[in-house]
Amino acid sequence: MKDCIFCRIVKKEVPAEIEMETETLVAFRDINPKAPVHILIIPKKHIENLANASKEDLEILGDCQLAAKEVAKKNGIEKAFRLLTVSGAGAGQTVLHLHYHLVGGWKDGIPGMEIWREE
Amino acid sequence: MKDCIFCRIVKKEVPAEIEMETETLVAFRDINPKAPVHILIIPKKHIENLANASKEDLEILGDCQLAAKEVAKKNGIEKAFRLLTVSGAGAGQTVLHLHYHLVGGWKDGIPGMEIWREE
Repeated sequence: MKDCIFCRIVKKEVPAEIEMETETLVAFRDINPKAPVHILIIPKKHIENLANASKEDLEILGDCQLAAKEVAKKNGIEKAFRLLTVSGAGAGQTVLHLHYHLVGGWKDGIPGMEIWREE
Repeated sequence: MKDCIFCRIVKKEVPAEIEMETETLVAFRDINPKAPVHILIIPKKHIENLANASKEDLEILGDCQLAAKEVAKKNGIEKAFRLLTVSGAGAGQTVLHLHYHLVGGWKDGIPGMEIWREE
Protein backbone atom coordinates (compact mmCIF):
# COMPACT_ATOMS: atom_id res chain seq x y z
CA MET A 1 0.00 0.00 0.00
CA LYS A 2 1.30 3.34 -1.06
CA ASP A 3 1.01 5.18 2.23
CA CYS A 4 1.86 2.30 4.54
CA ILE A 5 5.16 2.90 6.32
CA PHE A 6 5.87 -0.83 6.60
CA CYS A 7 5.19 -1.40 2.89
CA ARG A 8 7.67 1.39 2.24
CA ILE A 9 10.26 -0.38 4.42
CA VAL A 10 9.65 -3.56 2.40
CA LYS A 11 10.27 -1.60 -0.81
CA LYS A 12 13.39 0.03 0.74
CA GLU A 13 11.86 3.47 0.27
CA VAL A 14 12.26 4.01 4.00
CA PRO A 15 15.49 2.93 5.72
CA ALA A 16 15.42 0.30 8.47
CA GLU A 17 17.98 -1.82 10.27
CA ILE A 18 17.16 -5.12 8.60
CA GLU A 19 17.79 -8.27 10.65
CA MET A 20 16.42 -10.82 8.19
CA GLU A 21 14.78 -10.86 4.80
CA THR A 22 13.17 -13.74 2.91
CA GLU A 23 10.78 -13.99 -0.01
CA THR A 24 7.81 -13.53 2.29
CA LEU A 25 8.94 -11.34 5.18
CA VAL A 26 11.25 -8.70 6.59
CA ALA A 27 12.51 -8.34 10.17
CA PHE A 28 13.92 -5.02 11.32
CA ARG A 29 14.76 -3.21 14.55
CA ASP A 30 12.01 -1.17 16.17
CA ILE A 31 13.14 2.46 16.05
CA ASN A 32 11.64 3.02 19.49
CA PRO A 33 12.71 -0.15 21.34
CA LYS A 34 10.84 -1.12 24.49
CA ALA A 35 13.29 -3.90 25.39
CA PRO A 36 17.07 -4.45 24.95
CA VAL A 37 16.19 -6.46 21.83
CA HIS A 38 13.04 -5.32 20.05
CA ILE A 39 12.57 -6.41 16.46
CA LEU A 40 9.50 -6.28 14.25
CA ILE A 41 8.71 -9.17 11.93
CA ILE A 42 6.33 -8.31 9.10
CA PRO A 43 5.00 -10.10 6.03
CA LYS A 44 5.93 -8.38 2.78
CA LYS A 45 2.32 -8.72 1.75
CA HIS A 46 0.12 -5.97 3.11
CA ILE A 47 -2.20 -7.66 5.60
CA GLU A 48 -3.79 -5.18 7.97
CA ASN A 49 -3.63 -7.41 11.01
CA LEU A 50 -4.39 -10.95 12.15
CA ALA A 51 -8.15 -10.29 12.01
CA ASN A 52 -7.71 -9.62 8.29
CA ALA A 53 -5.52 -12.62 7.51
CA SER A 54 -7.00 -15.47 5.47
CA LYS A 55 -6.29 -19.11 4.74
CA GLU A 56 -4.08 -18.20 1.80
CA ASP A 57 -1.77 -16.46 4.31
CA LEU A 58 -1.21 -19.62 6.34
CA GLU A 59 2.34 -20.18 5.20
CA ILE A 60 3.33 -16.53 5.59
CA LEU A 61 2.04 -16.58 9.16
CA GLY A 62 4.01 -19.74 9.89
CA ASP A 63 7.07 -18.14 8.31
CA CYS A 64 6.80 -15.22 10.73
CA GLN A 65 6.84 -17.61 13.71
CA LEU A 66 9.93 -19.47 12.52
CA ALA A 67 11.62 -16.19 11.62
CA ALA A 68 11.15 -15.12 15.24
CA LYS A 69 13.14 -18.16 16.32
CA GLU A 70 15.91 -17.44 13.81
CA VAL A 71 16.16 -13.74 14.64
CA ALA A 72 16.09 -14.55 18.37
CA LYS A 73 19.02 -16.92 17.82
CA LYS A 74 20.95 -14.34 15.83
CA ASN A 75 20.50 -11.89 18.70
CA GLY A 76 21.42 -14.36 21.45
CA ILE A 77 17.96 -14.36 23.05
CA GLU A 78 16.69 -17.76 21.87
CA LYS A 79 16.40 -19.00 25.46
CA ALA A 80 14.07 -16.20 26.57
CA PHE A 81 11.90 -14.11 24.31
CA ARG A 82 8.32 -13.10 23.71
CA LEU A 83 6.44 -12.67 20.47
CA LEU A 84 3.32 -10.54 20.33
CA THR A 85 0.96 -9.20 17.74
CA VAL A 86 -1.69 -6.57 18.37
CA SER A 87 -4.78 -6.69 16.16
CA GLY A 88 -6.97 -3.63 15.89
CA ALA A 89 -6.65 0.00 16.99
CA GLY A 90 -8.80 -0.81 20.01
CA ALA A 91 -6.11 -3.23 21.22
CA GLY A 92 -3.34 -0.68 20.64
CA GLN A 93 -2.31 -1.33 17.04
CA THR A 94 -0.78 1.82 15.59
CA VAL A 95 0.62 0.77 12.21
CA LEU A 96 -2.06 -1.08 10.27
CA HIS A 97 0.26 -3.63 8.65
CA LEU A 98 0.52 -6.97 10.45
CA HIS A 99 3.62 -7.07 12.64
CA TYR A 100 4.97 -9.33 15.35
CA HIS A 101 7.04 -7.80 18.15
CA LEU A 102 9.99 -9.97 19.11
CA VAL A 103 11.39 -8.83 22.47
CA GLY A 104 13.99 -10.07 24.91
CA GLY A 105 17.45 -9.47 26.31
CA TRP A 106 16.35 -8.31 29.75
CA LYS A 107 19.21 -8.47 32.24
CA ASP A 108 17.35 -7.93 35.51
CA GLY A 109 14.41 -10.30 35.33
CA ILE A 110 11.30 -9.96 33.27
CA PRO A 111 9.70 -6.54 33.08
CA GLY A 112 6.03 -5.88 33.53
CA MET A 113 4.47 -5.78 30.15
CA GLU A 114 3.49 -2.11 30.03
CA ILE A 115 5.99 -2.21 27.18
CA TRP A 116 3.20 -3.65 25.13
CA ARG A 117 1.30 -0.44 24.94
CA GLU A 118 2.18 0.50 21.40
CA GLU A 119 1.32 4.16 21.91
CA MET B 1 4.30 -36.10 26.70
CA LYS B 2 3.04 -38.07 29.64
CA ASP B 3 3.44 -35.47 32.33
CA CYS B 4 2.60 -32.40 30.26
CA ILE B 5 -0.65 -30.82 31.45
CA PHE B 6 -1.42 -29.45 27.98
CA CYS B 7 -0.86 -32.84 26.34
CA ARG B 8 -3.30 -34.22 28.89
CA ILE B 9 -5.86 -31.58 27.90
CA VAL B 10 -5.36 -32.59 24.24
CA LYS B 11 -6.03 -36.22 25.21
CA LYS B 12 -9.07 -35.15 27.30
CA GLU B 13 -7.49 -36.63 30.39
CA VAL B 14 -7.77 -33.21 32.03
CA PRO B 15 -10.97 -31.17 31.57
CA ALA B 16 -10.89 -27.78 29.86
CA GLU B 17 -13.44 -25.40 28.41
CA ILE B 18 -12.72 -26.06 24.75
CA GLU B 19 -13.36 -23.17 22.34
CA MET B 20 -12.11 -24.80 19.16
CA GLU B 21 -10.57 -28.07 18.11
CA THR B 22 -9.06 -29.06 14.75
CA GLU B 23 -6.76 -31.84 13.60
CA THR B 24 -3.72 -29.84 14.63
CA LEU B 25 -4.73 -27.67 17.59
CA VAL B 26 -6.95 -27.05 20.59
CA ALA B 27 -8.11 -23.70 22.00
CA PHE B 28 -9.42 -23.54 25.55
CA ARG B 29 -10.14 -20.96 28.24
CA ASP B 30 -7.30 -20.06 30.60
CA ILE B 31 -8.36 -21.22 34.06
CA ASN B 32 -6.77 -18.12 35.54
CA PRO B 33 -7.85 -15.41 33.07
CA LYS B 34 -5.90 -12.14 33.00
CA ALA B 35 -8.39 -10.42 30.68
CA PRO B 36 -12.18 -10.60 30.12
CA VAL B 37 -11.44 -13.02 27.28
CA HIS B 38 -8.30 -15.13 27.77
CA ILE B 39 -7.96 -18.26 25.68
CA LEU B 40 -4.93 -20.47 25.08
CA ILE B 41 -4.27 -21.87 21.62
CA ILE B 42 -1.96 -24.86 21.56
CA PRO B 43 -0.75 -27.31 18.92
CA LYS B 44 -1.73 -30.91 19.65
CA LYS B 45 1.84 -31.86 18.92
CA HIS B 46 4.14 -31.40 21.90
CA ILE B 47 6.48 -28.59 20.93
CA GLU B 48 8.19 -27.06 23.95
CA ASN B 49 8.07 -23.49 22.69
CA LEU B 50 8.80 -21.40 19.62
CA ALA B 51 12.55 -21.79 20.13
CA ASN B 52 12.04 -25.54 19.69
CA ALA B 53 9.77 -25.37 16.65
CA SER B 54 11.16 -26.52 13.30
CA LYS B 55 10.34 -26.16 9.63
CA GLU B 56 8.07 -29.18 9.70
CA ASP B 57 5.86 -27.24 12.16
CA LEU B 58 5.31 -24.36 9.74
CA GLU B 59 1.71 -25.23 8.97
CA ILE B 60 0.80 -25.90 12.60
CA LEU B 61 2.18 -22.50 13.54
CA GLY B 62 0.17 -20.84 10.78
CA ASP B 63 -2.91 -22.76 11.94
CA CYS B 64 -2.51 -21.30 15.43
CA GLN B 65 -2.53 -17.75 14.00
CA LEU B 66 -5.67 -18.30 11.96
CA ALA B 67 -7.34 -20.07 14.88
CA ALA B 68 -6.75 -16.93 16.95
CA LYS B 69 -8.75 -14.97 14.41
CA GLU B 70 -11.59 -17.51 14.44
CA VAL B 71 -11.74 -17.79 18.22
CA ALA B 72 -11.59 -13.99 18.53
CA LYS B 73 -14.58 -13.76 16.18
CA LYS B 74 -16.50 -16.38 18.12
CA ASN B 75 -15.93 -14.36 21.28
CA GLY B 76 -16.82 -10.99 19.74
CA ILE B 77 -13.32 -9.52 20.12
CA GLU B 78 -12.15 -9.70 16.49
CA LYS B 79 -11.79 -5.91 16.33
CA ALA B 80 -9.39 -5.70 19.27
CA PHE B 81 -7.24 -8.52 20.56
CA ARG B 82 -3.65 -9.45 21.26
CA LEU B 83 -1.85 -12.72 20.68
CA LEU B 84 1.31 -13.54 22.59
CA THR B 85 3.64 -16.45 23.06
CA VAL B 86 6.34 -16.66 25.69
CA SER B 87 9.36 -18.80 24.85
CA GLY B 88 11.62 -20.00 27.64
CA ALA B 89 11.39 -19.99 31.43
CA GLY B 90 13.60 -16.91 31.48
CA ALA B 91 10.91 -15.00 29.60
CA GLY B 92 8.18 -16.22 31.94
CA GLN B 93 7.04 -19.47 30.31
CA THR B 94 5.53 -21.75 32.95
CA VAL B 95 4.01 -24.64 30.99
CA LEU B 96 6.59 -26.03 28.59
CA HIS B 97 4.20 -26.79 25.74
CA LEU B 98 3.92 -24.07 23.08
CA HIS B 99 0.86 -21.89 23.69
CA TYR B 100 -0.45 -18.61 22.36
CA HIS B 101 -2.41 -16.35 24.69
CA LEU B 102 -5.39 -14.72 22.97
CA VAL B 103 -6.67 -11.83 25.07
CA GLY B 104 -9.22 -9.06 24.65
CA GLY B 105 -12.61 -7.83 25.72
CA TRP B 106 -11.39 -4.91 27.81
CA LYS B 107 -14.16 -2.39 28.48
CA ASP B 108 -12.21 0.52 29.90
CA GLY B 109 -9.33 1.00 27.52
CA ILE B 110 -6.29 -1.16 27.10
CA PRO B 111 -4.60 -2.38 30.26
CA GLY B 112 -0.91 -2.23 30.91
CA MET B 113 0.58 -5.52 30.01
CA GLU B 114 1.62 -6.70 33.47
CA ILE B 115 -0.95 -9.34 32.64
CA TRP B 116 1.73 -10.97 30.60
CA ARG B 117 3.66 -12.13 33.57
CA GLU B 118 2.72 -15.78 33.46
CA GLU B 119 3.64 -16.35 37.09
